[in-house]
Amino acid sequence: MRAIKLKLSYDGTQYGGWQIQPNAPTIQAAVEDAIHKVTGDRPKVLASGRTDSGVHALEQIASFHTASALECNVLVRAINAHLAEDIRVLAASEVEIDFHPIRDTIRKRYRYVIQDGRILDVFQRPYAWHIPRHLDLEAMQTALSYFVGTHDFAAFQAVGGDRKTTVRTIDAASIVVLSAGPCRRFGIEISANGFLYNMMRNIVGTLVEVGQGRRTPDWVVHVIESKRREEGGMTAPPQGLFLVRVWYPGDDDSSEPAMSQQNSESR
Amino acid sequence: MRAIKLKLSYDGTQYGGWQIQPNAPTIQAAVEDAIHKVTGDRPKVLASGRTDSGVHALEQIASFHTASALECNVLVRAINAHLAEDIRVLAASEVEIDFHPIRDTIRKRYRYVIQDGRILDVFQRPYAWHIPRHLDLEAMQTALSYFVGTHDFAAFQAVGGDRKTTVRTIDAASIVVLSAGPCRRFGIEISANGFLYNMMRNIVGTLVEVGQGRRTPDWVVHVIESKRREEGGMTAPPQGLFLVRVWYPGDDDSSEPAMSQQNSESR
Repeated sequence: MRAIKLKLSYDGTQYGGWQIQPNAPTIQAAVEDAIHKVTGDRPKVLASGRTDSGVHALEQIASFHTASALECNVLVRAINAHLAEDIRVLAASEVEIDFHPIRDTIRKRYRYVIQDGRILDVFQRPYAWHIPRHLDLEAMQTALSYFVGTHDFAAFQAVGGDRKTTVRTIDAASIVVLSAGPCRRFGIEISANGFLYNMMRNIVGTLVEVGQGRRTPDWVVHVIESKRREEGGMTAPPQGLFLVRVWYPGDDDSSEPAMSQQNSESR
Repeated sequence: MRAIKLKLSYDGTQYGGWQIQPNAPTIQAAVEDAIHKVTGDRPKVLASGRTDSGVHALEQIASFHTASALECNVLVRAINAHLAEDIRVLAASEVEIDFHPIRDTIRKRYRYVIQDGRILDVFQRPYAWHIPRHLDLEAMQTALSYFVGTHDFAAFQAVGGDRKTTVRTIDAASIVVLSAGPCRRFGIEISANGFLYNMMRNIVGTLVEVGQGRRTPDWVVHVIESKRREEGGMTAPPQGLFLVRVWYPGDDDSSEPAMSQQNSESR
């Protein structure tokens, strides 16, 4: 038996999220079916974390066990041949048999993309939250900086979240303008050692209150300290959210995801 | 009666092109219906040119006549409120009653977007032609330069085209890298005083033969001179094609389309 680690990218628009469920197509089901067609196995494919319906991945990590002896680059091509074009395997590698994509994660980065301004950019509908007036990015940047560090993020966990601890460490957070002009698009990027359920979307909804001038940047300190979900802003809609990268012990920081958004950032 | 000129942007993915037809949703039908709901009129809306099924517009110009006295900025908001989000009115202005968006056009610019390399960028499927190996951009750039000038473009007109003359003048042509990396995306941009039916897609299909190394750049001179469609390359698929801008007498050159692609170019 071998353990195979997959690097995936997907457009979540047409899926009911990562995890298999009865009444919607899911990324997990699509990947498991493709692997079955290639290897004959019926493996369970685990990802570093579930993404919700409509959420995208520039880079998601998943793994499965197989008896197949196919080389990794053959697996990439063969699995892709059995996947719809909105899911791609970017790479495959053999890992230790006890590799666990959830438990072994040491860091994740998410990006949330907002398109602001009166005019909706028709090409960004499934990939951004459109807010029809310009937000104050400077105020949002200040507010965002208060999230960096080790905090109890209970106020940003979806109601019903059941993690043992709600303390997480955000080690980097920034706002990156992806395209300028009247249909401005920017990404809020946060890297942390872990994210609570809906934490990213709840932080974004809270930052938007600041960007709209309804709250001052300092207010987010109050929200964090309250540890109460109802003190913060709304949950941002799913289509603006991208899982950007997942780190495991030994991963270096130099390689960047191949997909389009990441590249536009670096221009 | 007033004549209103509309600046539109649309994602053509879900439509059977601009022009009304019985068995598919079209941009024209959607815009005419929205105007009817706003003004009570049933105007015919003319565009600067038809775009085919799957073809997009960063900026398309259309016009219609109305008895409505609504101010232009009110029209923009009201028409948008009755359109699906993949079509947006960017601006409206009152023009001379005899303005004709096809006849009065003096220049147009199209962009054709190619994503090359082994890995398909899942977020660019509806907005680019994926060619699974890297193309030689330098050779394509050289070949593209041979198109600039006044030529008989009969070899690049779809079979069955019926224009009186197939002579057109291309005054600018360039290749612009939109995003780098393994999922490289680039746009072939051509500005001309007019385009024959499928001319842009036939030029691109011909350039790709050069980019793949199957032909030398000089070969395109032979294709142009042959005036025979069968001498050139294939017709590139529709989803990579964007109408970027349309010029009328008096339009200045300074303003650029607001949509995402144009902005990523200027970064």
